[in-house]
Amino acid sequence: MFKKLSAEFIGTFWLVFCGCGSGVLAATLPEIGIGLVGVSLAAGLALMAMIYAIGGISGGHMNPAVSVGLAVAGKFPAADIPAYVAAQVAGATAAGAVLYLIASGTASFHAGGFASNGYGDLSPGGYSLTAGFVAEVVLMALFLFIILGSTHRRAATDFAPVVIGLSLTVILLVSIPITNTSLNPARSTGVAFFAETAALSQLWLFWLAPILGAVIGALIWKVVGEND
Amino acid sequence: MFKKLSAEFIGTFWLVFCGCGSGVLAATLPEIGIGLVGVSLAAGLALMAMIYAIGGISGGHMNPAVSVGLAVAGKFPAADIPAYVAAQVAGATAAGAVLYLIASGTASFHAGGFASNGYGDLSPGGYSLTAGFVAEVVLMALFLFIILGSTHRRAATDFAPVVIGLSLTVILLVSIPITNTSLNPARSTGVAFFAETAALSQLWLFWLAPILGAVIGALIWKVVGEND
Amino acid sequence: MFKKLSAEFIGTFWLVFCGCGSGVLAATLPEIGIGLVGVSLAAGLALMAMIYAIGGISGGHMNPAVSVGLAVAGKFPAADIPAYVAAQVAGATAAGAVLYLIASGTASFHAGGFASNGYGDLSPGGYSLTAGFVAEVVLMALFLFIILGSTHRRAATDFAPVVIGLSLTVILLVSIPITNTSLNPARSTGVAFFAETAALSQLWLFWLAPILGAVIGALIWKVVGEND
Amino acid sequence: MFKKLSAEFIGTFWLVFCGCGSGVLAATLPEIGIGLVGVSLAAGLALMAMIYAIGGISGGHMNPAVSVGLAVAGKFPAADIPAYVAAQVAGATAAGAVLYLIASGTASFHAGGFASNGYGDLSPGGYSLTAGFVAEVVLMALFLFIILGSTHRRAATDFAPVVIGLSLTVILLVSIPITNTSLNPARSTGVAFFAETAALSQLWLFWLAPILGAVIGALIWKVVGEND
Repeated sequence: MFKKLSAEFIGTFWLVFCGCGSGVLAATLPEIGIGLVGVSLAAGLALMAMIYAIGGISGGHMNPAVSVGLAVAGKFPAADIPAYVAAQVAGATAAGAVLYLIASGTASFHAGGFASNGYGDLSPGGYSLTAGFVAEVVLMALFLFIILGSTHRRAATDFAPVVIGLSLTVILLVSIPITNTSLNPARSTGVAFFAETAALSQLWLFWLAPILGAVIGALIWKVVGEND
Repeated sequence: MFKKLSAEFIGTFWLVFCGCGSGVLAATLPEIGIGLVGVSLAAGLALMAMIYAIGGISGGHMNPAVSVGLAVAGKFPAADIPAYVAAQVAGATAAGAVLYLIASGTASFHAGGFASNGYGDLSPGGYSLTAGFVAEVVLMALFLFIILGSTHRRAATDFAPVVIGLSLTVILLVSIPITNTSLNPARSTGVAFFAETAALSQLWLFWLAPILGAVIGALIWKVVGEND
Repeated sequence: MFKKLSAEFIGTFWLVFCGCGSGVLAATLPEIGIGLVGVSLAAGLALMAMIYAIGGISGGHMNPAVSVGLAVAGKFPAADIPAYVAAQVAGATAAGAVLYLIASGTASFHAGGFASNGYGDLSPGGYSLTAGFVAEVVLMALFLFIILGSTHRRAATDFAPVVIGLSLTVILLVSIPITNTSLNPARSTGVAFFAETAALSQLWLFWLAPILGAVIGALIWKVVGEND
Repeated sequence: MFKKLSAEFIGTFWLVFCGCGSGVLAATLPEIGIGLVGVSLAAGLALMAMIYAIGGISGGHMNPAVSVGLAVAGKFPAADIPAYVAAQVAGATAAGAVLYLIASGTASFHAGGFASNGYGDLSPGGYSLTAGFVAEVVLMALFLFIILGSTHRRAATDFAPVVIGLSLTVILLVSIPITNTSLNPARSTGVAFFAETAALSQLWLFWLAPILGAVIGALIWKVVGEND
């Protein structure tokens, strides 16, 4: 279990450091900035790489909602959820701290939202709580459906990390303007501590909606995808 | 059959929600918008992911023109076309509705074309009906040729979803300015209901041209690609 | 042989239609244009897809310089070069013609360079003949080296089309400003007929340099890569 | 050993020529420039391609820090480090020279930083020595962790070059603004000779930090990743 939790810590560190770091450090540079395409690629490819690297150790969840959803689908022991979630949140928070240390090493730094998630006034595009809730639930449900489908024995499972990582890229390309895209309570928590905004006060939504979505996605898969 | 049609519904939902959603929500944001590169990646990678996830259930068509083309090529029973097409159109329309619900959750929303397809006045780049027709037929014919080639037993078929998904990305990179790129009657139908423009009046072209192209592509493959 | 040459015709058509079409139709749209990143992805992914789709039929060269280089490396019968090259040039020219037909279907169309290659006054970035010659030779030599390495029995050859296609993407990301990047005499020829510039007068370089580079790359591989 | 060192020379040449060349030649063109997304893709995909092409010959390190890290992890004989590093630096320097020759072939050329690495005044975003040091160490440690994880017998090792190449893309998307991203002492050295800035005076950091990071990454992997 030590190796599994260490792997989850390291994997979530990488996912948050690269996914949020690309947004904080490189998205808005004049002329050559990576924009939302670059952030979406950075996060998705970071996830892909870590699933290949640590999938054989811990399964490569790096996301509390994924751990819960896999447990609902019967692919992960529910008793291990608390330890996994703790390791994930710890890794995400460590990533937020190191990112803050680096980002503050230039004179022009302002933390601002620091890649945190939000709705209403804290939504990048001013989207309402309802829009943010629906988006996070629907996207997470289908993300978990894709995770279960691409790792099923019927599928070409060697490609599953490519599918899962690049599906995160797709999700980000669609939904960053809505909530800055959580789908991952650990990711939301890890950077919210460092935001200058009221991101912590909205954090409940980014635990509730992704976990609810993951449960729904797991149930849909059990009806549509499992063969008897 | 229930599982197959559910899979087609879900898959087409995802393809349209992400392909069209990225365009509606994220393409034109100032400075960091994803532009046509982001939309092309979102749609192609969404298709790739779903073929891996549901290919083992329904074949992963998510497109009436693909179902027809595969039937012409002898890879899919023609009798199943109507049910598949109905599930695909239903999934696309559900995606349009959920996307509309989310997109309208911000004060600055205007539906406009809502990612619908068009020619002439409704073409993004002002391309004529002839240009749009030729582009949709030629691109769909070669898309079906690639689908049949990459899934043929001679090929490395585990890669077929990568090939097919990223070929959609290529097609979008070329042809969004012409017709906003259909190649998929379900996708065209699913968002046309929500457009403020006269997109519905041009919808016939985006049923006719992709299906015609798919038939041509299947016939070319039978001459060039099938070995005896 | 009919099937092989048909496959080369279709494959080269696709490569040129998508690679050059993305540049002509979508690169410079205000705000959402795909830029050189989009063009590089379109061409590279079109090549990747076609190698998977037709590799089992014709080998999937789609490029006279590749056919010559593979012959020098002993991987392709030299006697088949003329027929392959003819099919490639015919496919590229057909692609140029269809692209011209579509592109001229909007009022704002001007052919201009029409994605042709050039040096000096016709170089996108004003690069000299020497710079263009060196770039085309060096890049083609290493491109052929990568083709031979990734298809060698020591390598994970199922990935070779990914490697080859995305290496074209890399090459384009580096060298479009120099010569608009040929590396493929068929591609250069197929669009030069439609350019309003003096592209045809510079076409000799884009036959000479890629073929010379391919020969050099094949020879380097034979020294470094082949085991006895 | 001649073939191994030749392969490392050629591979590092390609990595530096494409990674740095895309930045020097194509990143900042008005309107269609590839920006940091394009540079990140060019470098990562160049690395991916060369690992597939030469991995079976030399292992495909192309980076002194990787050679050292793999030796610490027990995957590479320490006695071979000096020869590998010499070949890598030679290849990188040859790439810098050929790139300089080509880049200077247009009237508007100014060498400037010539894609070299730096901190403080020479950091693209004005980041301090501390920020640059932390970023290079942390990113390199996790890069080596991913290299070891994705090439471990538990993993789908045929995908390892995809994972490693695209992890470099991720790293660049995050960290170009900090130090212009080294993580590779050979890459830093090969272009520093051609910079008009004081890049050579800061070169020590880009030997020290990546090698230190690689050693840390190898040690972390031995604790977390190796099974007994």
